Amino acid sequence: MKKEKIESERRHIVIIGGGFGGIATAKALKHTDADVTIIDRLNHHLFQPLLYQVATAELSPGDISAPIRAIISKNPRIKVILGEVAEISPEMKSLRMRNGQSISFDQLVMATGAQYNYFGHGEWAEFAPGMKSISDALKVREKLLMSMEEAEQLHDSSKRKSLLTYVIIGGGPTGVEMAGAIAEIAGNGAKHGYHSIKPEDARIYLIEAGPRILNAFPESLAAKAKKMLEKMGVRVLLNTPVTNIEKNKVHLKVGSIETPNIIWAAGIKASSLLDSLKVAQDRSGRVLVEADLSIPQYPDIFIIGDSAHREDKNGMPLPALAPVATQQGKFVGKLLAKDGKRSSGSKFKYTDKGTMATIGRAKAVADIKGLKFSGFFAWFLWSFIHVLGLIGFRNRTRVFVEWIWNYFTFKRGVRLITDRSGCVYCTTYEINHKELKELQEMPV
Amino acid sequence: MKKEKIESERRHIVIIGGGFGGIATAKALKHTDADVTIIDRLNHHLFQPLLYQVATAELSPGDISAPIRAIISKNPRIKVILGEVAEISPEMKSLRMRNGQSISFDQLVMATGAQYNYFGHGEWAEFAPGMKSISDALKVREKLLMSMEEAEQLHDSSKRKSLLTYVIIGGGPTGVEMAGAIAEIAGNGAKHGYHSIKPEDARIYLIEAGPRILNAFPESLAAKAKKMLEKMGVRVLLNTPVTNIEKNKVHLKVGSIETPNIIWAAGIKASSLLDSLKVAQDRSGRVLVEADLSIPQYPDIFIIGDSAHREDKNGMPLPALAPVATQQGKFVGKLLAKDGKRSSGSKFKYTDKGTMATIGRAKAVADIKGLKFSGFFAWFLWSFIHVLGLIGFRNRTRVFVEWIWNYFTFKRGVRLITDRSGCVYCTTYEINHKELKELQEMPV
Repeated sequence: MKKEKIESERRHIVIIGGGFGGIATAKALKHTDADVTIIDRLNHHLFQPLLYQVATAELSPGDISAPIRAIISKNPRIKVILGEVAEISPEMKSLRMRNGQSISFDQLVMATGAQYNYFGHGEWAEFAPGMKSISDALKVREKLLMSMEEAEQLHDSSKRKSLLTYVIIGGGPTGVEMAGAIAEIAGNGAKHGYHSIKPEDARIYLIEAGPRILNAFPESLAAKAKKMLEKMGVRVLLNTPVTNIEKNKVHLKVGSIETPNIIWAAGIKASSLLDSLKVAQDRSGRVLVEADLSIPQYPDIFIIGDSAHREDKNGMPLPALAPVATQQGKFVGKLLAKDGKRSSGSKFKYTDKGTMATIGRAKAVADIKGLKFSGFFAWFLWSFIHVLGLIGFRNRTRVFVEWIWNYFTFKRGVRLITDRSGCVYCTTYEINHKELKELQEMPV
Repeated sequence: MKKEKIESERRHIVIIGGGFGGIATAKALKHTDADVTIIDRLNHHLFQPLLYQVATAELSPGDISAPIRAIISKNPRIKVILGEVAEISPEMKSLRMRNGQSISFDQLVMATGAQYNYFGHGEWAEFAPGMKSISDALKVREKLLMSMEEAEQLHDSSKRKSLLTYVIIGGGPTGVEMAGAIAEIAGNGAKHGYHSIKPEDARIYLIEAGPRILNAFPESLAAKAKKMLEKMGVRVLLNTPVTNIEKNKVHLKVGSIETPNIIWAAGIKASSLLDSLKVAQDRSGRVLVEADLSIPQYPDIFIIGDSAHREDKNGMPLPALAPVATQQGKFVGKLLAKDGKRSSGSKFKYTDKGTMATIGRAKAVADIKGLKFSGFFAWFLWSFIHVLGLIGFRNRTRVFVEWIWNYFTFKRGVRLITDRSGCVYCTTYEINHKELKELQEMPV
């Protein structure tokens, strides 16, 4: 009885999302006297900047993710709930889970991240998957490997050609990194044991609607990156908006490309959960937040990371990057740790440590506080920073070992086809889905 | 034209299966002048002895598997086909693939392995999955983690109790290893961040129909293993046949156990593809082979590994173990490398290097040529031999790093729930399968 009373007196802070922002908030609350609850749809934190390496068979899912429980397990006052929030009622200071259960909070931190933005063409998602979760990345991996397996056996030139064609839509860091990685796999078929696949067979397109790639980077670096990609055999198409996407086909203003390998990296929008707040949002669904990252009407609700719209001194909204989310999480965590009250006047300031993108083996571009690097050094810097960014000794060691191994052998370690739903034209074995299911259910 | 002629004159050796037997055969044929084709349903070789560690979140699938192409990629004369053989016609010396394509051979090596044997109760497979493939192991992993997540949030004691109950059926090495590994996870809930799960909450049953576990081992070692398991909190039930299995329930002669966590490790039978040969098979479907591992009627068809029934000097059939398959593969490979003809009189002899099973952290039993070990040394030996058994520097390093890390931290590195079809009672979030599909398709 008494215990219950005390608990009900204690502050309850709820954090939605176990990404960079959510974890940073929780860590900053390590010594709080409040009850903290982290809610996530899945049980693990994912190091998204390296997700493309899972999709390209270089890293294992386990290398770039860590169970949320394991990260914050020390403090028993921080609870982790695996589940999904259906809606939030800011006035009631409570939220409803998908299973109907409702949870009330004194303070709420929304670190709900972003999802891919198909700009009103949600139907494209089926044919041009984006990459935000591990299962997304594994689907892409399965498809890339499957198309090479089928190409290896096919002689019908038209089908074979399309199996070895890859279209990446969007010239941001993710698109650039995917294009580079695919060029290295498909361009080295023989090295991976596909003896009938010649480097010249692979056709890789990086498609960007705007006049340049990497537009968060200085012009000169973007130009360097473009050159590097082209040297690797990637065809970079600028000023080329996609007009339509259907199964195995991308339509451009200038024509169309036949291929099952279509990857979407063109834009993101904030989690739709924010809509239930009914407050001002920008074009891509991000909520306009105060200087202390709370919402005007609701001083006890904070929004951080990809879900928040906050402008820097140049009036540009802060980019949807891990460092922003992490710094904002730390900021809000400290704010809430101090006391229940919102200490008026405290403002979040983002310190830009620089931006970088890797293009491929020993190739990258980096812009660190105005200093521009490219080539091997930038790549080394990139690797170093990303290994450090991973959570925990285990993942750092594993990724490090993997990269060393890959650097010297040129090999991709994780080329696994674990089921065959990835089967593209299924020419090499017509499996219909009923058969496939039986196949998988069979304890073979 | 000419080229074709030469090719058609060249011997064509077909190997079905990329397991221990098939790979060993292919490696022994590395310098052959014949054309070699390896056919496998999936694209990777799997180190099955460690599969239970994938199911128990210690290793990643990529750590214990290697792309078949990568293993034998050096010799362009060895072709790899991803696909499934539907049937074999020994008289015609040809086989038909699932997609209708037919392939003819001069010599055939069947290394098709085994599948789980539900002794006429195929319907049990759905509720009590076995573990033969990576996707099997991942399904088990998802379920184990999911049941702990749900238990962590549940207060309804009966449901909670069943979520934390684990039944492993079959007291062979796999069953023993699974039981030990699960005891270490479930028994250390708090260490993994499940603060409401106490060690005494977990109930782990290892169920064996026979009078003892590990019956391939000396009595004394089996008894030691049983003691070790019991000390870890595993309830070992001997002489306890399973009478029926339904969803979330195992029926025994002595009663029944409620749990979603049912794992089948009770027996195997040879691949059903062998039936199409229409030759003499033993009770578990293995084909009775000659001294040189060929079939009486068909001197050019060889059967090795789990699919072959060959008796040792004591008249006992050779066990379904990796070393047997590997040695047989090497033997047949050499035989075929020498010439097309079957060199009469050559006999396969199995050299037993010993058997071992691990029970848990620093606990194992080993019987090496009559020398019996148990405890830390046996475990060390087991680890050492299994790391060496892995293919390639990469996997060895990764598994080694993982084990070191796990040894010192007690942590399981790969606790990933990548989708939520594993949802057991789904009490923590009612997701029906339609919703789930949307959830997964959504590019979140």
